[in-house]
Amino acid sequence: MTTPWDGVITAEDERRYEKAGFGRPSGIGARPALLIIDVQYRTLGDTPKPFDEALEDYTTACGEVGWAAVDHITDLLAFFRENDLPVLYPHVAPKQSYDAGTLGAKVPSIMLVPEQGYRIPDVLAPGPNDVMLPKKHPSAFFGTPLTSYLIGLGVDTLVVTGCSTSGCVRSTVVDAFAYNFKAVVPYDAVYDRSETVHKVNLFDMGQKYADVMSTDDAIGALGSAIGRGV
Amino acid sequence: MTTPWDGVITAEDERRYEKAGFGRPSGIGARPALLIIDVQYRTLGDTPKPFDEALEDYTTACGEVGWAAVDHITDLLAFFRENDLPVLYPHVAPKQSYDAGTLGAKVPSIMLVPEQGYRIPDVLAPGPNDVMLPKKHPSAFFGTPLTSYLIGLGVDTLVVTGCSTSGCVRSTVVDAFAYNFKAVVPYDAVYDRSETVHKVNLFDMGQKYADVMSTDDAIGALGSAIGRGV
Amino acid sequence: MTTPWDGVITAEDERRYEKAGFGRPSGIGARPALLIIDVQYRTLGDTPKPFDEALEDYTTACGEVGWAAVDHITDLLAFFRENDLPVLYPHVAPKQSYDAGTLGAKVPSIMLVPEQGYRIPDVLAPGPNDVMLPKKHPSAFFGTPLTSYLIGLGVDTLVVTGCSTSGCVRSTVVDAFAYNFKAVVPYDAVYDRSETVHKVNLFDMGQKYADVMSTDDAIGALGSAIGRGV
Amino acid sequence: MTTPWDGVITAEDERRYEKAGFGRPSGIGARPALLIIDVQYRTLGDTPKPFDEALEDYTTACGEVGWAAVDHITDLLAFFRENDLPVLYPHVAPKQSYDAGTLGAKVPSIMLVPEQGYRIPDVLAPGPNDVMLPKKHPSAFFGTPLTSYLIGLGVDTLVVTGCSTSGCVRSTVVDAFAYNFKAVVPYDAVYDRSETVHKVNLFDMGQKYADVMSTDDAIGALGSAIGRGV
Repeated sequence: MTTPWDGVITAEDERRYEKAGFGRPSGIGARPALLIIDVQYRTLGDTPKPFDEALEDYTTACGEVGWAAVDHITDLLAFFRENDLPVLYPHVAPKQSYDAGTLGAKVPSIMLVPEQGYRIPDVLAPGPNDVMLPKKHPSAFFGTPLTSYLIGLGVDTLVVTGCSTSGCVRSTVVDAFAYNFKAVVPYDAVYDRSETVHKVNLFDMGQKYADVMSTDDAIGALGSAIGRGV
Repeated sequence: MTTPWDGVITAEDERRYEKAGFGRPSGIGARPALLIIDVQYRTLGDTPKPFDEALEDYTTACGEVGWAAVDHITDLLAFFRENDLPVLYPHVAPKQSYDAGTLGAKVPSIMLVPEQGYRIPDVLAPGPNDVMLPKKHPSAFFGTPLTSYLIGLGVDTLVVTGCSTSGCVRSTVVDAFAYNFKAVVPYDAVYDRSETVHKVNLFDMGQKYADVMSTDDAIGALGSAIGRGV
Repeated sequence: MTTPWDGVITAEDERRYEKAGFGRPSGIGARPALLIIDVQYRTLGDTPKPFDEALEDYTTACGEVGWAAVDHITDLLAFFRENDLPVLYPHVAPKQSYDAGTLGAKVPSIMLVPEQGYRIPDVLAPGPNDVMLPKKHPSAFFGTPLTSYLIGLGVDTLVVTGCSTSGCVRSTVVDAFAYNFKAVVPYDAVYDRSETVHKVNLFDMGQKYADVMSTDDAIGALGSAIGRGV
Repeated sequence: MTTPWDGVITAEDERRYEKAGFGRPSGIGARPALLIIDVQYRTLGDTPKPFDEALEDYTTACGEVGWAAVDHITDLLAFFRENDLPVLYPHVAPKQSYDAGTLGAKVPSIMLVPEQGYRIPDVLAPGPNDVMLPKKHPSAFFGTPLTSYLIGLGVDTLVVTGCSTSGCVRSTVVDAFAYNFKAVVPYDAVYDRSETVHKVNLFDMGQKYADVMSTDDAIGALGSAIGRGV
C-alpha cells in the first residue's frame, strides 16, 4: 500500500507508532468547515512554474506543487459551497512597519512581499459570507477570532487546506486538535517547499492530530458525515 | 559539516530553505527560562532500555533516547539553578474520566497510564520555586497559565527541552515564536520515538521558529547572553 | 417592575442603554452547560453568617449572601443532573509559593487561605463525570482548557453561577460572550461582597453580554430550550 | 477625601473591601505602554455634544464625557511620544456580513455604523510605528495579537484609556491583570454612557485589577517609574 509519506518514513518508524497505539481515525462530525490557509500568490508564485523560478516571484513561493494543490482545494470548495457549509480564509495581511518582531529576525524576506503577493487566486475567490481572517502568526487560531467564529457557526470539524504543510497548516491542525475540533487534512490539498518536510509533517499529523486522506476520499467521507451521498 | 538532521533532510531541501531566506538565528535574550516538558517515566520507561522493551513499561515511552536526553537536561538544569533563572515543568497530569475527548479517540492508550508513569525522575526533581504546569494538550501554552508566569517573571527567551520533539516540544516552540519569545532547542535534550520524525522536526524548528544547537553550545551562548562566562 | 439592580441603576441610566439599543435577549441554545465558579468555603465562610463574622473565617468570604445563592445553585444543579447535561467546576486551587505575581501585590490575603477554604460544600459536591477546572485567574476561560471541554461536549450555552459577581463570574461571562457562547446569569445564584457592586455588574452583564433572570425563570427557559417542559 | 466613585459606592462598600484586604497598589514598571481603546467617532459623536444629541450621530456614542476624556488622553499620548514609549490602538473595524454572531443578537445597532464612525480624531492620530489592533470583541487581548506585541516590545505595564469604562476598558484591564501586566487606569481618560456604571467599574478595577488615578497623577508616577522627573 502506498502512503503519502512513502520513501521518507521507514517501516520501522511506522511499526513503532502502530505498536504505541497512535494513528486511530478521529472521524468527521456533522458540521464541517473548510479552512483555506495562505493560498495567496506569495506562496504559489504568480503562475505555475518550478520552485526556483517561483522564488523569483516571491521568496516564500512553493511553485508547481502549490498550483497542483489549488486544483484539489477547488474541488473541496465546490463541495462546501454546494452544501452551504462554512468556508474561512486565514491569510497573511500585508506587513506593517511595527510587525518585525521575532519573525523579522528569523525570516527577513517575509517583511518585503509586494501587494500582489497577498492576493488570492480567482478560482478560490472568497464569497460575501466567507470569513476573512488576517493573521500574524503560523496558526490560524493564534491572535485571531477563529475560535469564536467556529463556535458561533456550530462547527465540529475542520478540513484544513493550503500552505505550508509544515507551517501554518500543521500549527492550525495542532490547535484544532487541542480545542477538540476534529480535523481532516487532504494530503493533496496542502503544499510545502520540501517534499521530505511535507511528507513527515503529514505523517505526524496523521499519527497524532488529524485524519489524513486524499481530497477524493475526504469529499466522500464528508458527504456521508453530513448525510448526503456524493 | 554534520547537522542534527543528517541523512533525512536532503541537500536540495537545505538549498531551497536557504535560497528562500529561512533559518537565520533569532538569538538569546538577557532573561531566559528553562522548560522541561513531559520528562516523566511514561515517556522514558522506568529504566534506560531499548524502545520495544520500554513500550512494555508504557506505550508512550521512547526508551534509551529519552534517558540520553535526561543527561543533557541535567546539565541545563544545573546552569539555570546556578544562575538563579526560572525553571518550569509543563507535564501531563493523570487523566480523569472526563478527559477522553478527541485525544481518547486518536490515541486510546494515553488514557490508561498508571500513576508511576506521571512521576519525574529524581535527577530532574522540581525545586520549591519551580513552576509546575499540568497540561491537557500538546503545547505547554495551551489551556495553561504559562504566558502569565513568563510575563510575571520578565522572561524573554525559552530553552525548550523534553519530549516529544514532534509533539509537545514542537507545539510549545511554535507558540513561543508566536508570542514573540525567543526560543532555543538543544537537539540532544529533546527526544522522540522515531529518528526520522525527530530530525525533520528539529529542521523545521531551526528553519522557522527557534535556534537549534547542542546543549554544550546552548550553555555557552546562554552564559554570554546573561553576561557571565562559563 | 422591580429589577435586580433596583436602587442603584437610575431611570436615566436605563433610558440611555435602551435608547442606544442595548439589552436585547440572546436566548438559550439546545445544549447548555452549568458553571459553578469558586463556590468554596473561602468565598462563603464555613457556615452561614453575617459578612463581618464570615471574614473571620476567610478574608475572601461573602457570608450569608453566598449561602443564599448556594440554595439556588442547588436547584440548577438538580436540573442539569436530571437532564444529563454537562456541569463544570472552575475553582481556585491552593496557592503555591510560585503564585505571588501581580495578584499577591494587589490582594495579599489571597495567598494565605487554609486548605478547608478550598473545599466545595457537600450539597454541591462534584460527580465523577463533572469537569474540575483549577484556575489561577478571574475568568474560568483564562489559562484553562475550558474552551476545549465545551467544544468537545458540543455546548452552545453557559449558565454561570457562583462568585464573585464582579470578579470571576463577570470575567467568565465576558469571555463566554467573546467566544460566541450564549450566557445566562441567574441573579440569585451569584454573589458578591457589596450589594452596589453586585447590582451594577448584573446590569452590565444584562445590557451587553448575557441574559440575566431569576433561577426559577432560568430553569423554565432551559426546560423549553432543551425541549422538555418543567 | 473625594474618590472617582463618590456618590455611588457607599462607605460600607469601601469598609468591606478594605477589611478584606483589597485595593493595594500594584505599581508601575520600567516599560509602560499606552493603550487607546475605541476612541473613534462612533463612541464620541462627531463633535462634543450632550448624550442624547450624540446618539443621533451614532447609537454607540457617549457624547461630551468622551470628548473630555480625549483631552486627557492627548496629554498621556504626548508623554508617551516624548519618551519614545509604545502606543497601541485597539479599535473596532467596520463590521462584515459574517460578523453578526451573538453580538448582533445582543446589540443589533452595532452592525450598522457608517464608515466615518470608525475614524480616530486627528488629535489622537496614530503615528507610523504605533500598533493598530482591529478587534471583534470587548477585550483588546481577545482574538488579537496584542500579547505578542507587548512581549516583543518588552512591556511590563499598560496605561489603559478610552471607551467604554465598563466594556472594552474593563475587560482589557482584567486580561492585563491575568497576564501579569501591571495596569493603570487614569479615571478621567476613560468614559462610558452612564455615570453610575462608570464609577462602579472604576471602583471594581481599583480594588482588584489596576491602579486607578487621575491623568496628572499617572503622568507623574510614570515619569518616576521610567526614571525621568516631569
